[in-house]
Amino acid sequence: MITDDFLLDTPQARTLFHEYAEALPLIDYHSHLDPVAIADNKQFDNIAQLWLDGDHYKWRAMRTNGIAERYCSGDATDREKYDAWVNIIPRLIRNPLYHWTHLELRRPFGITGILLGPDTADEVWDRTSALLQSGSFGVQDILRIMNVELVCTTDDPADTLEAHTRIAQQNFGTRVLPAFRPDKSRALGNTRVWNSWVARLEQTTQRDIPDLPTFLQTLAERHDFFAQHGCKLSDHSIEMVDEESLSPEEAARIFTAARQNQAIAPRDVARFSNFMLDFFADLDARAGWVRQFHIGALRNPNTKAMDMLGPDTGFDCIDDFCYARPLAKMLDRSAQKDLLPKTILYNLNPRDNSVLAALCGSFQDGICPGKMQYGAAWWFLDQMDGMIQHIETLSQLGTLSRFVGMLTDSRSFLSYTRHEYFRRILCRVLGRDMAVGLIPDKLDLIGPMVSDISYNNAKEYFQF
Amino acid sequence: MITDDFLLDTPQARTLFHEYAEALPLIDYHSHLDPVAIADNKQFDNIAQLWLDGDHYKWRAMRTNGIAERYCSGDATDREKYDAWVNIIPRLIRNPLYHWTHLELRRPFGITGILLGPDTADEVWDRTSALLQSGSFGVQDILRIMNVELVCTTDDPADTLEAHTRIAQQNFGTRVLPAFRPDKSRALGNTRVWNSWVARLEQTTQRDIPDLPTFLQTLAERHDFFAQHGCKLSDHSIEMVDEESLSPEEAARIFTAARQNQAIAPRDVARFSNFMLDFFADLDARAGWVRQFHIGALRNPNTKAMDMLGPDTGFDCIDDFCYARPLAKMLDRSAQKDLLPKTILYNLNPRDNSVLAALCGSFQDGICPGKMQYGAAWWFLDQMDGMIQHIETLSQLGTLSRFVGMLTDSRSFLSYTRHEYFRRILCRVLGRDMAVGLIPDKLDLIGPMVSDISYNNAKEYFQF
Amino acid sequence: MITDDFLLDTPQARTLFHEYAEALPLIDYHSHLDPVAIADNKQFDNIAQLWLDGDHYKWRAMRTNGIAERYCSGDATDREKYDAWVNIIPRLIRNPLYHWTHLELRRPFGITGILLGPDTADEVWDRTSALLQSGSFGVQDILRIMNVELVCTTDDPADTLEAHTRIAQQNFGTRVLPAFRPDKSRALGNTRVWNSWVARLEQTTQRDIPDLPTFLQTLAERHDFFAQHGCKLSDHSIEMVDEESLSPEEAARIFTAARQNQAIAPRDVARFSNFMLDFFADLDARAGWVRQFHIGALRNPNTKAMDMLGPDTGFDCIDDFCYARPLAKMLDRSAQKDLLPKTILYNLNPRDNSVLAALCGSFQDGICPGKMQYGAAWWFLDQMDGMIQHIETLSQLGTLSRFVGMLTDSRSFLSYTRHEYFRRILCRVLGRDMAVGLIPDKLDLIGPMVSDISYNNAKEYFQF
Repeated sequence: MITDDFLLDTPQARTLFHEYAEALPLIDYHSHLDPVAIADNKQFDNIAQLWLDGDHYKWRAMRTNGIAERYCSGDATDREKYDAWVNIIPRLIRNPLYHWTHLELRRPFGITGILLGPDTADEVWDRTSALLQSGSFGVQDILRIMNVELVCTTDDPADTLEAHTRIAQQNFGTRVLPAFRPDKSRALGNTRVWNSWVARLEQTTQRDIPDLPTFLQTLAERHDFFAQHGCKLSDHSIEMVDEESLSPEEAARIFTAARQNQAIAPRDVARFSNFMLDFFADLDARAGWVRQFHIGALRNPNTKAMDMLGPDTGFDCIDDFCYARPLAKMLDRSAQKDLLPKTILYNLNPRDNSVLAALCGSFQDGICPGKMQYGAAWWFLDQMDGMIQHIETLSQLGTLSRFVGMLTDSRSFLSYTRHEYFRRILCRVLGRDMAVGLIPDKLDLIGPMVSDISYNNAKEYFQF
Repeated sequence: MITDDFLLDTPQARTLFHEYAEALPLIDYHSHLDPVAIADNKQFDNIAQLWLDGDHYKWRAMRTNGIAERYCSGDATDREKYDAWVNIIPRLIRNPLYHWTHLELRRPFGITGILLGPDTADEVWDRTSALLQSGSFGVQDILRIMNVELVCTTDDPADTLEAHTRIAQQNFGTRVLPAFRPDKSRALGNTRVWNSWVARLEQTTQRDIPDLPTFLQTLAERHDFFAQHGCKLSDHSIEMVDEESLSPEEAARIFTAARQNQAIAPRDVARFSNFMLDFFADLDARAGWVRQFHIGALRNPNTKAMDMLGPDTGFDCIDDFCYARPLAKMLDRSAQKDLLPKTILYNLNPRDNSVLAALCGSFQDGICPGKMQYGAAWWFLDQMDGMIQHIETLSQLGTLSRFVGMLTDSRSFLSYTRHEYFRRILCRVLGRDMAVGLIPDKLDLIGPMVSDISYNNAKEYFQF
Repeated sequence: MITDDFLLDTPQARTLFHEYAEALPLIDYHSHLDPVAIADNKQFDNIAQLWLDGDHYKWRAMRTNGIAERYCSGDATDREKYDAWVNIIPRLIRNPLYHWTHLELRRPFGITGILLGPDTADEVWDRTSALLQSGSFGVQDILRIMNVELVCTTDDPADTLEAHTRIAQQNFGTRVLPAFRPDKSRALGNTRVWNSWVARLEQTTQRDIPDLPTFLQTLAERHDFFAQHGCKLSDHSIEMVDEESLSPEEAARIFTAARQNQAIAPRDVARFSNFMLDFFADLDARAGWVRQFHIGALRNPNTKAMDMLGPDTGFDCIDDFCYARPLAKMLDRSAQKDLLPKTILYNLNPRDNSVLAALCGSFQDGICPGKMQYGAAWWFLDQMDGMIQHIETLSQLGTLSRFVGMLTDSRSFLSYTRHEYFRRILCRVLGRDMAVGLIPDKLDLIGPMVSDISYNNAKEYFQF
């Protein structure tokens, strides 16, 4: 199934991919890779550790197929987990995991011509184990094999970036940069958790944070500190919205109440969140960073699972609140100050595709091409149908050729084939259009567009 | 147009359908068939009675094409109605009624090679009349010809299930089971109507229902009574939502006010509805039933039509309220008690496809495969495009192979070709994927998946 | 790329287009063309004036590609603007502007076989300039070349229709009618702007408007006045909704407060808007006009751009409020009075496609075929993917054959190829269906349907 020409169903698509995309390095500007694992060049005994430790996509699929928690996040042996996973793989046909898994066997492991399932489980286990235990298949090796030029991790302002300092000293071939994700700074919905995070920030910075001005000043300094470590992006999860922000006085009052562990009313939580996002926008714009908004996750809806396993374990889903006006107002507040940073908007609910693609057009500035980006298909949408719909909406409502392209958004070091998956789908779409006369059948027009979306646009946009 | 290979546009699709789907019996786990008509083995004089008595899909299409009410639900003769219908059929090209109508002529009537229209009206009338008046074309005969193994009707807790008792005694080949639809028990928006329903429940059970505990106890006993009659499913229409439920004390207070015909505030109506749904979830979970939620109908928006013709006459439409969080909270309340029943979620607004498919994944339990089901394309979505989108979303966000498959949801005894329509579309999708290398081109992998979705999964899931 | 058979990828599609659509005149029942330019038979020096003066689609695309405002709406020379535009055209591949632009070169200019870009800029400039300066390429000539039988402009009730009177006297071949767009009459969100509009209405009608009855009476007379000028349509932008309307007494009170420049509460603004829309519905129904609702624009979100350039300059986007129930209630209020006019519902957010298509079915009356119309893909959706989705939703949830077809909704005199674009896409969809057996492969069935949607249905529906 997964051959050299997987997904490339026209001659044009094949040429586009093989000539204009395949060899280009990867710029993975948003991931959740663990910088400590990279700094340590972590080794793996077997593919179960790579595939099943922490991969909430697979856990979720396994639970759906009646696999007990012990074999997902639990204390079964690596081989038991692997067998449980392999047994359900044939059940996952048409799910992206089926493609991803086979793409990952092909690269970096070089295993082709095999459909994973109970009958091929041993062979795959043995061949991958041999490679992983060879001493040349650590995390840094995988990044090199996968031709990853640059990775951004996702980091908390309270982090010391110690691992990033270590990585920078190693200079192993892939650049690894931090990204600034200050979500916890504005999560007043649970002031107990928020205060413990503020305490952590105090610890990192060796400073008391009794009031809002100090809080903002501290965060601005962390922003600088991240910049000194090469950071070029911030990232923010948007899970509730309000059309209004707060005055500094109102924000200071709410900050003080929250520091005293008082409960904050939901609307004030939302407006304080706006206040902080406006503040971070100023920092990002002044630093020339790119800001990312990930909009619409419904996190931890399953209390029992949350209490047992914690967040990010495969129980999240898609929210459906309306946010066009509040989001437009937020962009407008920054634009009125001439401090609107480059921004990438990602939606989780596909019903909002057109809203975001159109909103971008309302804040393009005529200076930076593609300044406002309608971001790549995210999370549940990061699959073939989701990517095709994203490409279609961006094409029709915006400018596809300016798109900064794919990212992994992943916790797994094997996810780099998702860039390949995306590039193949992009070439499939464009190749078909060329073949049927919807766009010019001219490689000198379409080929560079593929290279731009695969690599050049990101290179230029993020200014790494 | 409708040949043996209708919709099957690859060799793989043809093999999948003819070898793995076509011969399998039908399990119609959700319908609105009239159990009295089944018990009576109702006979029809002509196809107008089958096609146009009570079929709100056709009435709606006829009104859209300028056909007066007299020929829809009115007092025109059967032949007049039939002629009115046949005259507009060529107008309905691309509407599912065009396919359905011709599929229904093919089966059970064996009429092929004819496009229905004014020029073929007489021939079709004569041939179908001859069959219907032959004495071997009653309701039970049709179910037998269509290879229906099992049907669930939709029944009110206040029903006596007298017709079901009669059917069970006849043992005519198709199993016919009741399903428990207690929507009226929680409809406090109109307390006058609600109280008259409670009076009916009192009548059926020969018991006074003055307070909430008695009400709940009575409904629990009706649940048991339905179970004794073979019931395995409940069904609930969700038309408004609130994130909160009520304490038993609050619910009791609202119940008492409603019994006194006091108007109940909308938010209390919604929360009382949640309270009842939580209660029914407990009953379903304990009984091992499957629960169905039909979400998002906007019923009876046309007051004049409602006053003239009543509900379910072809004037409903699609609502657009947001419900991800309230629905997630409802599932969570049950899951926290370890009393989340197997549940099928159907949406009427296609913009919510991904929300439901993702939500299912948040409550899969690692025990029952496919416990939470993203239900088949419903009502306005029960058409080719809607089914393809459902299959696509379920594939990408869930596990297609665990899908329990199609249902008719119909009031018409001719609707059984909808199962065939669905199976053809499923085989079309999978066959194309095989043909172009998106999934393995292996019948031993994909064939059983087709059989599972067509029949086996339902058999196992519902435990009939 | 754009040949005679552009988009027509089956023999059936080619026959449908060339035999049943291509030669039919255009009925453009909704546009924003300037009646003064038509009355004056405005001439152009060059294609920059036609393409770039006031075309917010192009400006928006240019800004997205980093073109400074000076070259969009600013004071650059025509040729500078043209060059800026042409330079980014290759960047717009897959955007509808890429197809539109080349379709417009082909008709009316007769330029084919050229891909517009920097290398062909001079040739296109020279050839189009020669035609435009020939004296036979004024606005009226273009309408004649494009075979436009009838155009409706969009006019304010306070307009004198002076230009329309002049046009009527010229009788140049295309009928040009006004359409009634009274949005400003109900815009109480800004009472200062609203009062200045009322002053303008007073000026036009030479009458004081101190109270609501006079206001309504004046608007009713303007409605009559428009009718005397051939008007057959009204048009209304729906940007906020409420389920309730107002009593005449409540409306009168709010009217008086607004006349005194008091701020009106948002909910009262929405309900006054409903009150006015109900009033206009009565007028439209009594006059036999067709009413249009354009639902869901989010206008002027970018304050800085609005302050600099004003409205309709390419900064609007798509809103995401929920409106199924309020809209259904509005239709119901009219239907209860037997005063529901023929209505066309257009949505801007594609997630609402099915809501509108289904809602139409709830208010069809069994008298006028296709009385309630699910309107053509609008604005951001007026592109290939949007049109295909519109056709699909209308087909599956309604009756495609009754569709009144395409409109330009444009400020540009070159936009008439959008009718051709739509007809080609319609024939593409139907031709494919014929070719693969989804609909009967019979030209005598499908051909007339194409002609109806392209021309006949509009002719009959609007009763021009």
